[in-house]
Amino acid sequence: MSMEFTESQKNRLTELGVRNEILTRTFDETKEREQTFARTEKMAVKENKAALSHLLANSHKPALCQLQQDLTDALCGEGFTQVTTPIIISASKLEKMTIDKTNPLHEQVFWLDSKSCLRPMLAPNLYEVSRQLMTSIKLPLRIFEIGSCFRKESEGNAHLKEFTMLNLVEWGTPEEKRSESLKEFAELVLKAARISDYRLEEEDSVVYGPGLDIVSGEGMELASTSMGPHPLDAAWKINCTWVGIGFGLERLLMHREKQSGIHRHSKSTVFLDGACLKVK
Amino acid sequence: MSMEFTESQKNRLTELGVRNEILTRTFDETKEREQTFARTEKMAVKENKAALSHLLANSHKPALCQLQQDLTDALCGEGFTQVTTPIIISASKLEKMTIDKTNPLHEQVFWLDSKSCLRPMLAPNLYEVSRQLMTSIKLPLRIFEIGSCFRKESEGNAHLKEFTMLNLVEWGTPEEKRSESLKEFAELVLKAARISDYRLEEEDSVVYGPGLDIVSGEGMELASTSMGPHPLDAAWKINCTWVGIGFGLERLLMHREKQSGIHRHSKSTVFLDGACLKVK
Repeated sequence: MSMEFTESQKNRLTELGVRNEILTRTFDETKEREQTFARTEKMAVKENKAALSHLLANSHKPALCQLQQDLTDALCGEGFTQVTTPIIISASKLEKMTIDKTNPLHEQVFWLDSKSCLRPMLAPNLYEVSRQLMTSIKLPLRIFEIGSCFRKESEGNAHLKEFTMLNLVEWGTPEEKRSESLKEFAELVLKAARISDYRLEEEDSVVYGPGLDIVSGEGMELASTSMGPHPLDAAWKINCTWVGIGFGLERLLMHREKQSGIHRHSKSTVFLDGACLKVK
Repeated sequence: MSMEFTESQKNRLTELGVRNEILTRTFDETKEREQTFARTEKMAVKENKAALSHLLANSHKPALCQLQQDLTDALCGEGFTQVTTPIIISASKLEKMTIDKTNPLHEQVFWLDSKSCLRPMLAPNLYEVSRQLMTSIKLPLRIFEIGSCFRKESEGNAHLKEFTMLNLVEWGTPEEKRSESLKEFAELVLKAARISDYRLEEEDSVVYGPGLDIVSGEGMELASTSMGPHPLDAAWKINCTWVGIGFGLERLLMHREKQSGIHRHSKSTVFLDGACLKVK
């Protein structure tokens, strides 16, 4: 009778980053399975230790931190200005994004009390800062933020409850140049992230309605784009043309580093820079 | 009869960053006060607009973001490795820091539910990551994190509910070199932050007990230091000598930029890079 690794063996090998081909191997007898597990775990522990040693002795910066710095520098170099806003936002800001109790996103929000929550996206703060800047600054205006957002997700292989968003927006893009600008900005970011394998695809967002997604070769969502004038703009007293893109940084790394789970490059106390810390 | 600016006038001039000497001026009559207010506000609005224009046209990076990058580069250059960990932590991690209901800090914690909260400090995650690294890495080990922490503060001029901490630690510092290393690391960080006006002072922390604070010339706390072996170490199964320092980045900027309030350089939708966004 043929058997697979036990669930706990699979979990251990998964956290150590062992490839799927090996995880799904079958064995004729228990002894063979146990020996293979012991040998595979030992080798994987060695590889994770080597990765941690390299980080501590040489590179010193996890890929997630390096990526933030690279994206910041690339965007500032193209005239985008960085902003940095609070993680705790008001319920009224969410309502302005139409995230009230009828919106599926509402259930994913972490609430601190009835009036404040952890931002599930960067957009409300960017709208708020932009509205104020536009009272004194001439368009076009390019701004971006990189920061943590929070959603109660099922925490699968492609979702995190805390994830790092990059949201960029250009206000005042000429209407006929919006698609072209979206492509240009997507290329700017993905080039800085050292990702070349992507394409644009139509999707339907619960917040923004129909639009374009940027997806990896295998079809994983890397970013979603939006453009205005948009029905949401009125709540922020904004009435100009614009384009915006939101990227999930851990998604970008998962894709670039060809990893099967999103946790290895996330903000974590179990993983550091793609390596598992449980290597005792 | 002599009169001061009204409270709302004072608040408006304060958010515009008008200096204290002007805020406390007295007037003989209402007309003189109103004219002075109008003139002062107009000038201050102009200055804030100029600062925003400069950011958007030239520097593109708020001081808080630039400081994070400068500190990261300086620390990585001296062999410190950056880590990046979750903002949401478990109640049990806080208990390991002795922050239970008898500790004054407990009331300042933002709770999401009975088991999880927003980290009020970086230390518990740094302990957790370090404990695991030490199972495979030889000492000394230098690591640091820069990230948001959250405390329900009275939100005065020197406190923020969301603030940006830098916490660095060296595990395995020779016992007799601990004070010397603390001074060396403080100097490294404060030099990278372009701050020269500081001194060390004794204090008594609710978490770490007696220790050394790093304070500005005017006596404002810029950082607090700690060293081990320490009673807290046992909960994390750590038993080696160590030194650590925690800096508040907004405090560093408030001191360096000689500003009277801490909000101007904080993560905000009212201020951006030290300038007030309400300049209409």
